[in-house]
Amino acid sequence: MNVEVFLTGSHVTEEDVEGRTVVVIDVLRASSTIITALANGARAVIPVADMDQAGKIAMNLDPSTYLLGGERDGDRIDGYHLGNSPLEYTPDVVEGKTIILNTTNGTRTIWNARNAEHLIVGGFLNANRVVQFVREAGLDVTIICAGRNNRVALDDALCAGLLLHRLWEGREPEYVSDAAHIALTQYLHDRDRLADALRHSNHARWLIEKGYGADVEYCLQLDALPVLPYYRENRLVLYRERQPSESVG
Amino acid sequence: MNVEVFLTGSHVTEEDVEGRTVVVIDVLRASSTIITALANGARAVIPVADMDQAGKIAMNLDPSTYLLGGERDGDRIDGYHLGNSPLEYTPDVVEGKTIILNTTNGTRTIWNARNAEHLIVGGFLNANRVVQFVREAGLDVTIICAGRNNRVALDDALCAGLLLHRLWEGREPEYVSDAAHIALTQYLHDRDRLADALRHSNHARWLIEKGYGADVEYCLQLDALPVLPYYRENRLVLYRERQPSESVG
Repeated sequence: MNVEVFLTGSHVTEEDVEGRTVVVIDVLRASSTIITALANGARAVIPVADMDQAGKIAMNLDPSTYLLGGERDGDRIDGYHLGNSPLEYTPDVVEGKTIILNTTNGTRTIWNARNAEHLIVGGFLNANRVVQFVREAGLDVTIICAGRNNRVALDDALCAGLLLHRLWEGREPEYVSDAAHIALTQYLHDRDRLADALRHSNHARWLIEKGYGADVEYCLQLDALPVLPYYRENRLVLYRERQPSESVG
Repeated sequence: MNVEVFLTGSHVTEEDVEGRTVVVIDVLRASSTIITALANGARAVIPVADMDQAGKIAMNLDPSTYLLGGERDGDRIDGYHLGNSPLEYTPDVVEGKTIILNTTNGTRTIWNARNAEHLIVGGFLNANRVVQFVREAGLDVTIICAGRNNRVALDDALCAGLLLHRLWEGREPEYVSDAAHIALTQYLHDRDRLADALRHSNHARWLIEKGYGADVEYCLQLDALPVLPYYRENRLVLYRERQPSESVG
């Protein structure tokens, strides 16, 4: 299994994802929001690349069936029902709803990777579930850290390192891509104080300053929600095993 | 002094470099070739972003005064005088010449960063000289790793980590950018076996396979050429202290 890692997601090409299992990571907060919304009963999450796309999709849906969620500069977009805080996506709010999600880095990265053979969303919340899927799929895998405004984000890199550590069962192969090696090195450096390292990341500190500290703590919970957002026909749905149309490999 | 690091150079914007000291790192091999050419007596190196630009600049120069250098896919470009191997840039070849240099990642990154207040080129060969300049300039600094085809390159990241370690005299500040933290972590992880780690990088392995192993060994020599390529009026020249027009700060 060939493993590729991108430490920022903005310039992934179709060639980078074609025929592969692709894991998009945006720990703070799009991944965690998507995982939470689906775990809490949302019918689907439609990740979009920009405002225009969000508006067009909303226009074609019955207003009683969807919620618009997303952020710019970390805060809820004016006129949207929800921001990008996973804590807003409670069962009473999202059950049965389709969420149109519009975030600065995460949903744009998912959109860029939409032509993958399998496209899933990962974070600390569902790390083990992601590793299980990647193993069972058996395809080459590309882990894409969304990063932040074209820059590396420590939180995403640490999550990628954690996935690699588990995928490789602690034994780094002899030849890996430089980005994979760097993500794993960072994870091994911080694994004994992972939550502290994550709180210290640029994005976490920024969110904490903006009053979203509870979100940060929520997103750092390892394996708390063992569900898998899986992309199909322009939307993320809960992946369920043994459904023929969803079979892996 | 604010320190920013980019682990890939392809998407640096004018805003990222304006008013700052910018260090572009492309260890394998553009940085090392530029350092070597200037140390060996080349009059200047003109870094270009593509073939067109190289051709246009060459057309306006007296053919006896310049050499075209550069690579695609690691090898000398057809019709060029020189490739991108620093070992080709010997005194008898380059003395007094202007080199038009056209490489896949390095010279393009320099071109993207051309509006910096001070733009210098760094590698292992001149690491201490770079740190000395950055300190004396006293401005905020942006270290840009050229990387490789939009991807992180371990060799460049390790060189960035080394520069940070020396700049900070071994004490990482409390708040640094995630990319700086990651580069430093990787350097500290590998510092006791730096040459081996570098030989194991994706780019080094690729060059060794292509027969450029001697280049790799050459580029890894720490502080072997304490000279500073400095960008002025579209070209890199040797930085010389105490010349009023070149004064720092």
